[in-house]
Amino acid sequence: MRGLFVGSAAVTAVLAGLFLHDASEVRAADAVPGYAYGSTALPRSPVTEADLDLLKQAVLFTEEDVRHLRLAGEVLADQIEDVLDVWYGFVGSHPHLLYYFTNKQDGKPDTEYLGRVRKRFARWILDTTAANYDQTWLDYQHEIGRRHHRTGKNEADNAPAVDHIHFRYLVAFVYPISATVKPFLANKGHTAETVEKMHAAWTKSVLMQTILWSHPYIRDGDF
Amino acid sequence: MRGLFVGSAAVTAVLAGLFLHDASEVRAADAVPGYAYGSTALPRSPVTEADLDLLKQAVLFTEEDVRHLRLAGEVLADQIEDVLDVWYGFVGSHPHLLYYFTNKQDGKPDTEYLGRVRKRFARWILDTTAANYDQTWLDYQHEIGRRHHRTGKNEADNAPAVDHIHFRYLVAFVYPISATVKPFLANKGHTAETVEKMHAAWTKSVLMQTILWSHPYIRDGDF
Repeated sequence: MRGLFVGSAAVTAVLAGLFLHDASEVRAADAVPGYAYGSTALPRSPVTEADLDLLKQAVLFTEEDVRHLRLAGEVLADQIEDVLDVWYGFVGSHPHLLYYFTNKQDGKPDTEYLGRVRKRFARWILDTTAANYDQTWLDYQHEIGRRHHRTGKNEADNAPAVDHIHFRYLVAFVYPISATVKPFLANKGHTAETVEKMHAAWTKSVLMQTILWSHPYIRDGDF
Repeated sequence: MRGLFVGSAAVTAVLAGLFLHDASEVRAADAVPGYAYGSTALPRSPVTEADLDLLKQAVLFTEEDVRHLRLAGEVLADQIEDVLDVWYGFVGSHPHLLYYFTNKQDGKPDTEYLGRVRKRFARWILDTTAANYDQTWLDYQHEIGRRHHRTGKNEADNAPAVDHIHFRYLVAFVYPISATVKPFLANKGHTAETVEKMHAAWTKSVLMQTILWSHPYIRDGDF
């Protein structure tokens, strides 16, 4: 899959460092810098569980999707660093996307920031497959949104990166984050039908989360 | 597919009227009420063709997708009313979605408004498959966004419907509008691989359009 995204020599050097990883770190929440799921210090999401129930209906998300996400979690567990290599390869091969990981002072990719986000991204894959959709989960979705938006960007990492991830790319990533996972879901011998169902569940969840992350970007009353 | 979405008796009556249609009307642009593609009276989109080119890269949209959308247009041409029956059946079977087609005075579904939107929706299917992604196309995407948002809602139809379609459902619809089209793409004997490619192209285009439609909802500078 990595071959899909042909990078420039300039970004290859940066990415090479990111492909060095220790898979054992992924599982330990306390090893994930800036990870704050369940922290009582987080702002409350303005979205309620009742709102979420209606949103689930709009994306056709059912209990069958929850079950297939659990299965996807088992399937992806030992492939997470490979998935991240694809995603980071995609970002790294597009300067207008890599921009969001650059230091705002010198315009160069910030390796430490990229590495910290990568660890949270690994954890996010597992969290997406294990999600239970309660208020704690909603609160962390809101926090993820805030961390992409200028109101909360860089706080978690005390990072010198650019101040804001533009809305258009936050939502655009639904497609690559969905499509690139499908081959990994097919890697463990499940039937084509089961792979389709895992992939559909994953796609619905990513879309729903992206909507929740968008909240800080939306004009008052428009969400 | 319509069986997926079981409606209440209350909405079935409303929808029954909408399932009466004249397929020949779909093709004639001048028969589509409120359709304004290419009108010089439309506001200019704040998104440029250069912005769009970068957005295409973020959703992995290529010339191969353009070709497969053209093919999808041929495949869907005589199935458009069936596709719309599925979509309207979905909306009609969920009161929190049907709400957006209700009269704000009496809270009842507005049949005339539903019918006018349906004709534009039919045309939108063909436009999506035939799109050429120039400034005229961008300007109409911006107008479609404005018509969902409180700043432009109901202007095109002089309709008494509710004043605003909430952002969360604008984006949530990417999933049902994408998933429900796939069986129709498979109805004309193309290989599974070609159906997958048509469906991927459709999904990317719908996601990209939804991002463009969101512009009026986004805080200044955040898009």
